[in-house]
Amino acid sequence: MMTRAECARWLASRDGFLILTHGRPDGDTVGCSAALCLALRKLGKSAFVLENEEMIDKYAPLHENLTQKEPKPGDILVSVDVSAPHLLPPAALPLAEKIQLRIDHHYTSTSFAPNELVDSAAAACTEIIYDVICELGVALDEPIARALYTGTATDSGCFRYSSTSAHTHLVAAACMEAGLDAAPINLKLFDTVSLNSLRMQAWAIENTRFLLDGRVALCPMPKDTKEKLGIPEEEGGNLSGFLRSIEGVCMAATVRETEEGVTMISMRSLPGFDSSAVCALFGGGGHKAAAGGHKEAPYLEVADEVGRAMCAAVEQAWTAS
Amino acid sequence: MMTRAECARWLASRDGFLILTHGRPDGDTVGCSAALCLALRKLGKSAFVLENEEMIDKYAPLHENLTQKEPKPGDILVSVDVSAPHLLPPAALPLAEKIQLRIDHHYTSTSFAPNELVDSAAAACTEIIYDVICELGVALDEPIARALYTGTATDSGCFRYSSTSAHTHLVAAACMEAGLDAAPINLKLFDTVSLNSLRMQAWAIENTRFLLDGRVALCPMPKDTKEKLGIPEEEGGNLSGFLRSIEGVCMAATVRETEEGVTMISMRSLPGFDSSAVCALFGGGGHKAAAGGHKEAPYLEVADEVGRAMCAAVEQAWTAS
Repeated sequence: MMTRAECARWLASRDGFLILTHGRPDGDTVGCSAALCLALRKLGKSAFVLENEEMIDKYAPLHENLTQKEPKPGDILVSVDVSAPHLLPPAALPLAEKIQLRIDHHYTSTSFAPNELVDSAAAACTEIIYDVICELGVALDEPIARALYTGTATDSGCFRYSSTSAHTHLVAAACMEAGLDAAPINLKLFDTVSLNSLRMQAWAIENTRFLLDGRVALCPMPKDTKEKLGIPEEEGGNLSGFLRSIEGVCMAATVRETEEGVTMISMRSLPGFDSSAVCALFGGGGHKAAAGGHKEAPYLEVADEVGRAMCAAVEQAWTAS
Repeated sequence: MMTRAECARWLASRDGFLILTHGRPDGDTVGCSAALCLALRKLGKSAFVLENEEMIDKYAPLHENLTQKEPKPGDILVSVDVSAPHLLPPAALPLAEKIQLRIDHHYTSTSFAPNELVDSAAAACTEIIYDVICELGVALDEPIARALYTGTATDSGCFRYSSTSAHTHLVAAACMEAGLDAAPINLKLFDTVSLNSLRMQAWAIENTRFLLDGRVALCPMPKDTKEKLGIPEEEGGNLSGFLRSIEGVCMAATVRETEEGVTMISMRSLPGFDSSAVCALFGGGGHKAAAGGHKEAPYLEVADEVGRAMCAAVEQAWTAS
């Protein structure tokens, strides 16, 4: 495992970089690639980001004038925020074995490159890239700051998540000292919701059972719900997380009927309550704060069972505390 | 006007402080008072916060073991985050003239004390208190950091508002370096919504007119809306702000029928659009981003007029840009 300084020396002594991002790109992988590419160019080096065919509009401007369609012979491949080779976008999958340097911050990540800088203490991979850029002696400018801030703010939930550290805030401060106006970025990333997810939430509020004096929220969803609401299948947002955010709710779940006859459970809970233990009763698991499960039984029947299990778990945690 | 260093010297050379907060206290005034009180005590001084009769549950723990019911003779009165004397809570109003030091960050603030430290560049008044505490040579500990973080995070919208600066993030970083676990605070302050405001939003989504390809959102509200939904009059949240947050919406307004026969308009808009100019057509005003107006006419009639005015304003701004 490299240190930040070793990684910077490795980069400084080479030239001709092609930076790879992960599939279904988020603000962090796009921000990392753009910031590193711009910093290497400021050192007079040739650096590009491999075009990501799954890029979305929200982050595309960060890659403007930085992308290359295909690797060129001799390109030094560097991956950023990619925790396992199979997470590369389809077109980049054949390049996985040629990656020479991997920079990442995922807790569960697979070693797959000869040179690696991985630090799971970073809320965002851009925090590591920031340190490397400092080690390279490159001063932040507005475009680099914009890329670093986008990754840092998105992966830390705008500094709300428990992964946020003093270092996360220091990176944001450095970006703003470099002249970045973060307000328009925050407005776009954190203060905008889709009408479809709001309509889904409105439906959920009317159809959620609030149990145990509102400490448990349970939303059974028949399979035609989205169809009836005219909401595309991939839209509608994170409903169980939404229900968990309601004042007083400690544990929330959606219990969803599917076409295949399996009932799917998605559960979220506040600190002090264990969603994964409840989901383990339904062939699933995950984290204490977020877990999932499934059962081959009618969804309303499963909903009753899940409701009882959640109430028992919340009462037990309540009594224990 | 004092500098931070002068303010610290002023405090260091005195003893026996009573700190005053503003009425309808928020995280900033409570955070300032708690942090300053704790820091002065760490210097061995006698310091208390005057009990605020309008304190709310959310912030009350910060004042635990710090409050005093009434001023004692000789107490040196210091106000924090109070921009004008009439904003003190009712019980503290008679003390306004005796305030000897005022620390504030409001842009429009009234001079009312012989010694003042006011800096409107600070997103939160806790940012100024942090600097003063550093000048006093007091090291942050967890309780001080908790108070400073609460003020800084709430007044900056969890680092989202345009007032957030590098210094805002540096204060947050210092709090976390002092051992603060910010995640539970963030969860409580920024990741919890009331069921009543969600039910109000659900109603609004079903009853809002989306005009001009969804760039304008207009929600006419009959006077019995909250009553029918069983929502107390003072609850339900900021509906026009909520409508403005919907993806694609540039300008949003609620047009509300009242018992008194006056129709009330509340408007919000994205940067680049001017709510105050539209509200000026309806006897009102405010800021570009947030404004209000009113008209003595049936609310559905006013809604049509407001809708036309918003569409015209958005189209004009759109064409001009």
